Amino acid sequence: MNYPNGVKKQQKQNINYKNRGMCLEDDLNETNLYYRQQDIAYIYKKPTPIQITKVDYPSREKAIIKEAYFKEPSTTDYNGLYKGYYIDFEAKETKIKTAFPLSNIHPHQIEHIRNGIRHGGICFLIVRFTFQNETYLLWGEDFINFLDQTKRKSIPYTYFKEKAIEIPFMYQPRLPYLTIIDKRIGGHYENEKNGG
Amino acid sequence: MNYPNGVKKQQKQNINYKNRGMCLEDDLNETNLYYRQQDIAYIYKKPTPIQITKVDYPSREKAIIKEAYFKEPSTTDYNGLYKGYYIDFEAKETKIKTAFPLSNIHPHQIEHIRNGIRHGGICFLIVRFTFQNETYLLWGEDFINFLDQTKRKSIPYTYFKEKAIEIPFMYQPRLPYLTIIDKRIGGHYENEKNGG
Repeated sequence: MNYPNGVKKQQKQNINYKNRGMCLEDDLNETNLYYRQQDIAYIYKKPTPIQITKVDYPSREKAIIKEAYFKEPSTTDYNGLYKGYYIDFEAKETKIKTAFPLSNIHPHQIEHIRNGIRHGGICFLIVRFTFQNETYLLWGEDFINFLDQTKRKSIPYTYFKEKAIEIPFMYQPRLPYLTIIDKRIGGHYENEKNGG
Repeated sequence: MNYPNGVKKQQKQNINYKNRGMCLEDDLNETNLYYRQQDIAYIYKKPTPIQITKVDYPSREKAIIKEAYFKEPSTTDYNGLYKGYYIDFEAKETKIKTAFPLSNIHPHQIEHIRNGIRHGGICFLIVRFTFQNETYLLWGEDFINFLDQTKRKSIPYTYFKEKAIEIPFMYQPRLPYLTIIDKRIGGHYENEKNGG
């Protein structure tokens, strides 16, 4: 659970949803659902990868997984299609005020982002600093440049301020990140595409 | 388990891997792994979507899923990136000799294929008829045309013979389906891209 700057402990019962937003994953799921419902883009969060080791079949139709383990993801969590472009990103939030720890991103995911860029995909990170309650889109290229130029174990908040683009928090969709993609591909964001 | 045409029950212990191949999913996983290792394409099978209802934490680091249920997929199983194109497909095998039952594909997946085509993705089905031991790539457009023109509950094998492209079974990669994509996008298949 993430509380915005200034929300004190005793106020937690009385969360101000207007300013707060839910967790980043919820915000992105709602955003992607909106984009799908408006026929704008088809971007999904991939299911959590697990290793299933035991399944029960109490009836012919129903299977219950009785034992399974979380696996390390080999790709980023989100991918999909927008205006013919392959879209691929990882989303993370951090409570740390001054930097985004790179331990949040698995080595496989970094490799996946490198590969995606090299093969013509639009790849990026969406990072929320929960203390500031700010959400940034950092292009994969800038992320990789950072990794290749330093040996730091975290990306300073100031790097986001300088290089990344802040995604405003809106009513609908909550995190209109495709507006930023549009500027990159030179397209026009057709919000009312299907009159919807 | 799928046995090729002519393999009798008593022969099952002595499977001829050369002619048989493994199940379609294994063949595709190996194919996609080969494409990744050769830096040709980054196409993955999505994890199986599940609803987790109970998790144990016997230690700080380790989580064991103790109860979970399979969810109906809302997208196709495979997607990824090839030469800047968004690739999306569903793969199924059928033991039925004369037709591919449409009950194999969920309504959500059909909708997903329609959406993918409309937004400029390269979408298709890979269907294996295990009796004939033949694997076909059917373009999403031909699949959707079939659905929109008939009310049949299955696609006849003859429709595949006529409209789909057979994917040869090879040594490496096992199912070189990107060769077919190349013909569509007019590119040249760079098998030795990285000298690999």
